[in-house]
Amino acid sequence: MATPRTTERGTPAPAPDVGLEQGTAREWKRRHVLDLDDFSADEIALVLDTTKAMKEVLSRDVPRAPALRGTTIVTLFYEASTRTRASFELAGKVLGADVINVTASGSSIEKGESLIDTVRTLRAIGAQVLVMRHSMSGAPYLAAANCDARVINAGDGWHAHPTQGLLDLFTLQTHIGDLAGKRIVIVGDVAHSRVARTDIWGLTTLGAEVVVCAPPTLLPPELGKPHEGAALPNVTVEKDLDKAIVDADAVMTLRLQKERMQGGLLPSMREYSRLYQITEARMAKAKPGAPVLHPGPMNEGVEISAAVAHGAASLVEEQVQNGVAVRMALLYLMRGGK
Amino acid sequence: MATPRTTERGTPAPAPDVGLEQGTAREWKRRHVLDLDDFSADEIALVLDTTKAMKEVLSRDVPRAPALRGTTIVTLFYEASTRTRASFELAGKVLGADVINVTASGSSIEKGESLIDTVRTLRAIGAQVLVMRHSMSGAPYLAAANCDARVINAGDGWHAHPTQGLLDLFTLQTHIGDLAGKRIVIVGDVAHSRVARTDIWGLTTLGAEVVVCAPPTLLPPELGKPHEGAALPNVTVEKDLDKAIVDADAVMTLRLQKERMQGGLLPSMREYSRLYQITEARMAKAKPGAPVLHPGPMNEGVEISAAVAHGAASLVEEQVQNGVAVRMALLYLMRGGK
Amino acid sequence: MATPRTTERGTPAPAPDVGLEQGTAREWKRRHVLDLDDFSADEIALVLDTTKAMKEVLSRDVPRAPALRGTTIVTLFYEASTRTRASFELAGKVLGADVINVTASGSSIEKGESLIDTVRTLRAIGAQVLVMRHSMSGAPYLAAANCDARVINAGDGWHAHPTQGLLDLFTLQTHIGDLAGKRIVIVGDVAHSRVARTDIWGLTTLGAEVVVCAPPTLLPPELGKPHEGAALPNVTVEKDLDKAIVDADAVMTLRLQKERMQGGLLPSMREYSRLYQITEARMAKAKPGAPVLHPGPMNEGVEISAAVAHGAASLVEEQVQNGVAVRMALLYLMRGGK
Repeated sequence: MATPRTTERGTPAPAPDVGLEQGTAREWKRRHVLDLDDFSADEIALVLDTTKAMKEVLSRDVPRAPALRGTTIVTLFYEASTRTRASFELAGKVLGADVINVTASGSSIEKGESLIDTVRTLRAIGAQVLVMRHSMSGAPYLAAANCDARVINAGDGWHAHPTQGLLDLFTLQTHIGDLAGKRIVIVGDVAHSRVARTDIWGLTTLGAEVVVCAPPTLLPPELGKPHEGAALPNVTVEKDLDKAIVDADAVMTLRLQKERMQGGLLPSMREYSRLYQITEARMAKAKPGAPVLHPGPMNEGVEISAAVAHGAASLVEEQVQNGVAVRMALLYLMRGGK
Repeated sequence: MATPRTTERGTPAPAPDVGLEQGTAREWKRRHVLDLDDFSADEIALVLDTTKAMKEVLSRDVPRAPALRGTTIVTLFYEASTRTRASFELAGKVLGADVINVTASGSSIEKGESLIDTVRTLRAIGAQVLVMRHSMSGAPYLAAANCDARVINAGDGWHAHPTQGLLDLFTLQTHIGDLAGKRIVIVGDVAHSRVARTDIWGLTTLGAEVVVCAPPTLLPPELGKPHEGAALPNVTVEKDLDKAIVDADAVMTLRLQKERMQGGLLPSMREYSRLYQITEARMAKAKPGAPVLHPGPMNEGVEISAAVAHGAASLVEEQVQNGVAVRMALLYLMRGGK
Repeated sequence: MATPRTTERGTPAPAPDVGLEQGTAREWKRRHVLDLDDFSADEIALVLDTTKAMKEVLSRDVPRAPALRGTTIVTLFYEASTRTRASFELAGKVLGADVINVTASGSSIEKGESLIDTVRTLRAIGAQVLVMRHSMSGAPYLAAANCDARVINAGDGWHAHPTQGLLDLFTLQTHIGDLAGKRIVIVGDVAHSRVARTDIWGLTTLGAEVVVCAPPTLLPPELGKPHEGAALPNVTVEKDLDKAIVDADAVMTLRLQKERMQGGLLPSMREYSRLYQITEARMAKAKPGAPVLHPGPMNEGVEISAAVAHGAASLVEEQVQNGVAVRMALLYLMRGGK
């Protein structure tokens, strides 16, 4: 695994208008952003560096930099979302792009138009970047293969959520520095979490040591039997949270979907909370100052205590803030940095 | 009660770009706009003066003044709305702000995210002003207390609708001048009307004499028993519309929600119309030229006759027009007039 | 019938900013665009020439021309739509207008507000152009008659869809030149198609010879009995597709609504496909290179084979592309070309 670059090296002097060095975009080769499973450490570093420049834009008195003026971005959401859709919309607008929102309700999609037809139509209308969320894993790949817009996966089924992964990496790096060799504990419903899956790819690519902690029914099959040939290096499983959390450099916890109870995967919410809730007592076993991340929305009192959720260790709001900058960075890089 | 300022004094000469004197904003101290119950007459006068300047912007050939470029406004609507949401959206865009719309349907709110989480998330994404409508009274106060965005209440339950109140005051002043001592009759379902409640605060603050006219079941408890210690000075109750309307300087009528019938509060729509409909015959008893206001949408033939609704006395469309200018004024003042 | 102008004559040299000759707009007299039934050949030619200039704008590096800065466009959709709403929204934004979307779900329309009230309110808020889709034929006429916004019909019931008609004419002209005397075959559910109805008006106005081909139950009454006095000159009916398609200059096929089966108008989807599907074998009987148009979304394997839908003859995506330019042209002309 490549040694990840840190964010500590010198950031380029901002150009007058956009705040980015002219050369940055030359390194970017990727047409779509569908998952982090094939990102190199260098590519991730480029995104995170660009994110830093975008945070500078957002801190200005007039936080706008119209680098993407004339660009048309379409958000195509087949699943409900507040934060991700609004975050992409603002990211585009900050950069001067026009953003058109299309949702499954209130559109031709209700007429049974196929996904491929829909994305080709949106491309023909003028979408240069298509930001897409879908309940079926793989849907954005189908879109990318069947139209020549650039596609960003904003979450597909239980599969991937690369912008969440990148914002988690950025937020972690800001607080604990270079992730190589760091012990990052991911707690909760990993089996059904596109966030966990994506974070694991990103973290291991940057050299972190990932500890996955969940009840057996919420572990993905390939992690549930690690001794029969683990698919993922640098990932270990520890079902006991009180052991997993010892000396953690950071803890990432996940939303517990209430549907899991009905599906029979968990005996009770109360039992789950007792065993897997991130509490102040448990955080005391982690390294001093270890931060806690959550992709939101949180079930306070279930996977995270209210005290931790709103305490000093919580980076939840910072994750949301960084999400806009990460999405700006990707939009900027994908449009050739022009 | 302070003597209200009139709108007749000299309006400042417009600055080249924005059309507002540089000094105006210095007087504005308010962080949120949640109700009119704590607005002073001076504050109301400042909003109405600024509204006048905004009307001038809207009358230009290119009716845009990008005073709020770089500002992010999020409209967060938990209740259906055409006019209020579109009015705020246009007000923001006229001033060059970016406006992001979030509605309860098609968002994380469907996942049961709490109101506080939602507003904190929207603030973290970048919302500087949050325009919020909610079916529960007090919801915008909860938002204002729990995130550091500036909050404008766009209607909460039966409680308040301050921008409607301000546009009603502006519209009235334009037509009948200084409101001090004027007799304003509010007719209809006052008990369940955030508009009536807000108008009463604004009108009495400006020194008007308010006459509330409704069947006993549609009067709020504190007004239903005025002789046991009226909570509101300058407000009287007169259940007979034909008496209430005599010598009125203006009449404000309210939408009758059809649900009131089902709730048993009214015997029949027909009975209500006979007793409380604003008709030309009744308007003949008011002062000559007295205008009629309605917050819309109107039930023609119920609380207002078609002839009055579309007659010379009706200010309904002017109220809607003024709504954009009032909202521009508030957005401008709340952003420091920069 | 007037001889239609071709698109071949010299296009005016673009002005620096907008790309349109200053004089073009002087010829435009029309306040609303509700149907093509009263468009002259000259008017159609003006729209198509302007569309050509708009395509040039869309081909620029920064495809934006803010000719309509300060203009407020409201899209008011009572029916689901992806492509039409997004196409209008982008058309407006390319020209620098502000676009506000209002849909039947999530608006006061749910409160039972009447159409006339809604459009008057939107006009009062500031809508200068109202783009409207409604399931009831004639609804945009009601809007146009009752408010002084300019109204564009974006589809009303089975009645008309003029922007679709204009984009079809533009796309056809681009590929087969002057339409006078050309044999255009329209296949499918003509009785329930606002697209077919509108295309027939436009095509015959430009001098084309239209052949309508459908099972008797899907023919409109006035075409079903052509010998009893045809209402439309230059339109003939041929129920046998294999005869109709012979020597066609172009074929336009229509979406078959699945509801038609339930309504008892068709025996089976399979039978329909066997008799009326546009296949490569059938296209071989048309003129060499004859293009195929479809308003989308397509039911592949029903009214069109997959091979034709994605083959060289298919203009489906080009139709969608041209839709943005046609809508830009109309918005530009309707706003006085300023």
